[in-house]
Amino acid sequence: MIPKITIVKVGGAVVEDEAQLSRLLQDFFAIDGPKILVHGGGRRATKIAERLNIETKMVNGRRITDADMLEVVTMVYGGLVNKNVVARLQALGCDAIGLTGADANILLSAKRPVKMVDGTPVDYGFVGDVKQASGTKIAHFIDAGLIPVIAPLTHDGEGHMLNTNADTMASETAKAMAAVGFDVTLIYAFEKPGVLRNPDDDNSVIATINHADFEAYKADGTISGGMLPKIENALAATDAGVKRVIITQATAIDGLHGTVISS
Amino acid sequence: MIPKITIVKVGGAVVEDEAQLSRLLQDFFAIDGPKILVHGGGRRATKIAERLNIETKMVNGRRITDADMLEVVTMVYGGLVNKNVVARLQALGCDAIGLTGADANILLSAKRPVKMVDGTPVDYGFVGDVKQASGTKIAHFIDAGLIPVIAPLTHDGEGHMLNTNADTMASETAKAMAAVGFDVTLIYAFEKPGVLRNPDDDNSVIATINHADFEAYKADGTISGGMLPKIENALAATDAGVKRVIITQATAIDGLHGTVISS
Repeated sequence: MIPKITIVKVGGAVVEDEAQLSRLLQDFFAIDGPKILVHGGGRRATKIAERLNIETKMVNGRRITDADMLEVVTMVYGGLVNKNVVARLQALGCDAIGLTGADANILLSAKRPVKMVDGTPVDYGFVGDVKQASGTKIAHFIDAGLIPVIAPLTHDGEGHMLNTNADTMASETAKAMAAVGFDVTLIYAFEKPGVLRNPDDDNSVIATINHADFEAYKADGTISGGMLPKIENALAATDAGVKRVIITQATAIDGLHGTVISS
Repeated sequence: MIPKITIVKVGGAVVEDEAQLSRLLQDFFAIDGPKILVHGGGRRATKIAERLNIETKMVNGRRITDADMLEVVTMVYGGLVNKNVVARLQALGCDAIGLTGADANILLSAKRPVKMVDGTPVDYGFVGDVKQASGTKIAHFIDAGLIPVIAPLTHDGEGHMLNTNADTMASETAKAMAAVGFDVTLIYAFEKPGVLRNPDDDNSVIATINHADFEAYKADGTISGGMLPKIENALAATDAGVKRVIITQATAIDGLHGTVISS
């Protein structure tokens, strides 16, 4: 029998709000079978950085991670957010274990090279692009009855932590679990009920998006901004054998709502 | 055959100094067989707290952990220090996994009640006294070939992280491993070559200390201050079946140097 697993990615806005986090963890707890939670924490990192007088620099919605900011995200994602989520899940009776990519070497990455963005070279700093995700290692935790809670941090194998996009962490984890034989459902939870045809109308959820749909929606401007990399990550996951990928609201992670992304 | 394990506890002063940390991790890497590293991080926490305008309050060398300070230690111990040590060990080829007591519920504690200290009630705040350490869970990681790196944090089983003394974490972990059948060597590494008869003479290391010796040294003032709880933790470990307990310098963790504590 093919083992099933559900991977839920939830953004910073949810994990940093007490009422939303509480609801999300209850819903996550209610999901049957093996599961993994991948979380963000960017807003909290920005706030702590501000209190430490460390400037937050963004290029096209992506954080520039200098040495000081790397310390902040390592503290906030790997410590503050991750451990609080783990403690909260433990209180629900969910045997959670907090992990970054460095722990048990589950996600190894390479520091992102300087990239041209709109004709300007951009150095994202200590940001990691995932090179290798170990489904075998993660499956070992699952087999032991543990529920991994993954923070958006990886390492470079040379002793340095690297900041890594949480959507990408979720996609890479899902792909790795599919590669070792799991029937994977990947759920991207965010603030809207799905990918919307009209951003002002929550009833305009697009039911399914495949590669061709995505190209068309990009071309006519229906999909833009931060939704683009999210759908790219989702499509990469389905292309690599992840069974179901869904983009939905954080209050509807039962797999029955939202936009289904398929190859 | 009885499996052996070495548990090394190293304080904040070592893990926060690049040269000392580098040497320590090399020496830790060189220890044969299964092993666990337990670390502190208090100085770093104090520095970060200062930058966040959070006052550090101490009573008899113990930190008072209010809600703000709990956030700081959760960030610093569980995130910054722990993940950097894990990444550094991974770079050496040591398959490290960072854990707090909440992760996989390995160390459960109870919030310390208000205590009378020199006739004054002291509320230590969000500080945990360990109730239960799971040797079975930790042994599972060891059996998987992993090297646990444990931060001085526990949880209360009700969703809250708690600040916990690192010496106590090491002692409780050692006792738990002994309880599930391991032949445990517990090494407390600090800045001196052992327990000194004369604090100004590094050549005055006391070779062995048992309960009777400890009482005598306490009575005549040879041992005082921060060394008292360290030796109490060490004695508690030997009493509970930990095979060897050694207090030594961070540059001499091979088990051949320092003061041997025995029941």
